[in-house]
Amino acid sequence: MARRKKIYEGKAKVLYEGPEPGTIVQYFKDDATAFNAQKKDVIEGKGVLNNMLSEYFMSGLNQIGVPTHFIKRLNMREQLVRQCEIIPLEVIVRNYAAGTMSKRLGIDEGTQLPRPIVEYCYKDDSLGDPLVTEEHIAAFGWASQQDMEDILSLALRVNDFMSGIMMAVGIRLVDFKIEIGRVFDGDFQRLIVADEISPDSCRLWDIETGQKLDKDVFRRDLGSLTDAYTEVARRLGVMPKNSTPVTKPTLIN
Amino acid sequence: MARRKKIYEGKAKVLYEGPEPGTIVQYFKDDATAFNAQKKDVIEGKGVLNNMLSEYFMSGLNQIGVPTHFIKRLNMREQLVRQCEIIPLEVIVRNYAAGTMSKRLGIDEGTQLPRPIVEYCYKDDSLGDPLVTEEHIAAFGWASQQDMEDILSLALRVNDFMSGIMMAVGIRLVDFKIEIGRVFDGDFQRLIVADEISPDSCRLWDIETGQKLDKDVFRRDLGSLTDAYTEVARRLGVMPKNSTPVTKPTLIN
Ligand SMILES: Nc1ncnc2c1ncn2[C@@H]1O[C@H](COP(=O)(O)OP(=O)(O)O)[C@@H](O)[C@H]1O
Ligand SMILES: Nc1ncnc2c1ncn2[C@@H]1O[C@H](COP(=O)(O)OP(=O)(O)O)[C@@H](O)[C@H]1O
Ligand SMILES: [Mg+2]
Ligand SMILES: [Mg+2]
Repeated sequence: MARRKKIYEGKAKVLYEGPEPGTIVQYFKDDATAFNAQKKDVIEGKGVLNNMLSEYFMSGLNQIGVPTHFIKRLNMREQLVRQCEIIPLEVIVRNYAAGTMSKRLGIDEGTQLPRPIVEYCYKDDSLGDPLVTEEHIAAFGWASQQDMEDILSLALRVNDFMSGIMMAVGIRLVDFKIEIGRVFDGDFQRLIVADEISPDSCRLWDIETGQKLDKDVFRRDLGSLTDAYTEVARRLGVMPKNSTPVTKPTLIN
Repeated sequence: MARRKKIYEGKAKVLYEGPEPGTIVQYFKDDATAFNAQKKDVIEGKGVLNNMLSEYFMSGLNQIGVPTHFIKRLNMREQLVRQCEIIPLEVIVRNYAAGTMSKRLGIDEGTQLPRPIVEYCYKDDSLGDPLVTEEHIAAFGWASQQDMEDILSLALRVNDFMSGIMMAVGIRLVDFKIEIGRVFDGDFQRLIVADEISPDSCRLWDIETGQKLDKDVFRRDLGSLTDAYTEVARRLGVMPKNSTPVTKPTLIN
């Protein structure tokens, strides 16, 4: 494989320059972090599962006309995506209270919300991704009024679609986070869903048992994260075709 | 069971007065009709399957905040629903060309449409449910401009959710039809999804094999309709708990 230029290494992924201008390669690492990277570990196979699952959700969204950055999966750990200008917001959609919302507002985890609530956090690890309002977003120019409308409608469409997927396999979509990017078609800008959609970025609870099938398993030490993500992949029929247990490559040299 | 007043008998269902004012009981018959009832048959078990499946989809829609008439399932063939004033339109959402759209516009069945297309047909069996435009709808006062906006957004939300459900179980949602009803909360009117959502009102193709799992099996004599609907129910985990084959009640007297 030709040597590619690394553009960015984040907590869960590495970005490389893609083969065509305007494309990048997303490499999914096995690194797991939580609480703004205060808790860290390497979870064998996580990257492969998230790569496959993000492909599954993003290609499904493309199919129904919700534009995403996803172009195609390249191999077990990498996917080709459209490069975009990431809007520095974590867009969170919540159907049930959990996590920081439960803590901040004193609502028991699992309480159904009166309607889906969309929250925005300013994406800045050094600040701990603080919650912001549309006032902040407008005042600091992170997104225009039109952008905000488009982001809201993208977020709600992703929620409807993901809720359907999850319901069909006996999972409750408690909440999820997406990132949105700008792409330019000539003079026009459009917004697309970027980054990843995976059990790292969703809260997924088994409808019957309440069992957590998402990153909270790692955050709260509830067992094997790979087992949880594998269960999601299994229910969706998303499994590495070559379904031997995912192990580290053997170093040869 | 107390004797209930029959309100209406249609091609696939019977409506009875419900226990509370503003409610009705929908009884799902085994009758199958096609081509405006020129083709007819009784398909043992169809009513039970459609009752269960319509419950599954409608209660999922209620969950995600798409309002529907569904209140609760009463038994294998009946569900309690909120009575509404049905808008006399069949609202059709198409993701792939099929059926009458393919015939009318000369597009091969299975061709993916550039985006979901919403069509309206005037619900009148004696006219064969003719396609109408928003001009007709406005001119004849079947729905106001605001109604039309609400209908469009309901239809697209149902499409996103149903597309997710179907994708998760390996089924392509080709198209579907819904009916919309008006309910009054004091002085306010709201629109809700009514009638049924079932393989009678959707086109469902297996993603891998293209096998039809919907009423086209009956329309086109492609095999057992009950087997097709049972397969949809099985994939969704929607099966009569008492899963013995559904047979006619034995008449005792
Ligand atoms: N299509 C894209 N174009 C450009 N940047 C992207 C795209 N998709 C995701 N990104 C960015 O790539 C990085 C993904 O790596 P990740 O390990 O998640 O980083 P972080 O630790 O910053 O969250 C994120 O900063 C994300 O905003
Ligand atoms: N919630 C509701 N309130 C009142 N009428 C309803 C409701 N849901 C469905 N309907 C009507 O009940 C009838 C259902 O029976 P069906 O056998 O499908 O009739 P049809 O042969 O007219 O299509 C339809 O006419 C439909 O418009
Ligand atoms: Mg990230
Ligand atoms: Mg009908």
